[in-house]
Amino acid sequence: MSASAEIEEGIDFTPKFDSSGLIPVIAQDWQSGRVLMLAYMNAEALAETMATKEAVYWSRSRQALWKKGETSGHIQKIREILVDCDQDALILKIEQIGHVACHTGRESCFYRSIAFYGENPKLNFEKKE
Amino acid sequence: MSASAEIEEGIDFTPKFDSSGLIPVIAQDWQSGRVLMLAYMNAEALAETMATKEAVYWSRSRQALWKKGETSGHIQKIREILVDCDQDALILKIEQIGHVACHTGRESCFYRSIAFYGENPKLNFEKKE
Repeated sequence: MSASAEIEEGIDFTPKFDSSGLIPVIAQDWQSGRVLMLAYMNAEALAETMATKEAVYWSRSRQALWKKGETSGHIQKIREILVDCDQDALILKIEQIGHVACHTGRESCFYRSIAFYGENPKLNFEKKE
Repeated sequence: MSASAEIEEGIDFTPKFDSSGLIPVIAQDWQSGRVLMLAYMNAEALAETMATKEAVYWSRSRQALWKKGETSGHIQKIREILVDCDQDALILKIEQIGHVACHTGRESCFYRSIAFYGENPKLNFEKKE
């Protein structure tokens, strides 16, 4: 197979980190399918995540490994990890302990939608459950 | 409100592009919730997407605007756009025309999971529907 076919159709996991050494990771509720957050991992965070079966990210703001839920208790237990065709993005199918993924206290970081039909787009908040 | 609170709790859409002028975008089937792909937009791609209600991305490999489905016909019709807490990631809730988002001909780019319980992680392909 060509290098590109090997990446897309092979069975070897060869994650592609960007020039900063990071790969974007989508955390998705393993049952509801709701996307909870988008974060980044470096190779060490990914290895830690696979070894512990709990999500460990790389904090770009703090420039440090970030064990999700270490202080809040809102651990993300890994149920499955998916990789995309060119192996430069991951999905974690997770069980979100505490049902809160966002630091604002919400289930998901994606709690606003764009009302984009006007001149000046505004944001709508999700309805309270 | 502080700048951070304004970004997280305000109603103004102020997308944060990275140092390359890009924002990551998760394309998710608006009905099934399946994540179909992760791509990037610059400000122009986002404006085009909002204006046409069809997904336009920025191709990092070709360094050009990329109207999804322009040649394949696999257009992504926008049903909703969500933004995350710090406004540096988007979700497009889309209707995927042709039910194929991936250039490999699959519904989703995320067609492999990582069998990560061994020493040497391998990939499993999704079962055929």
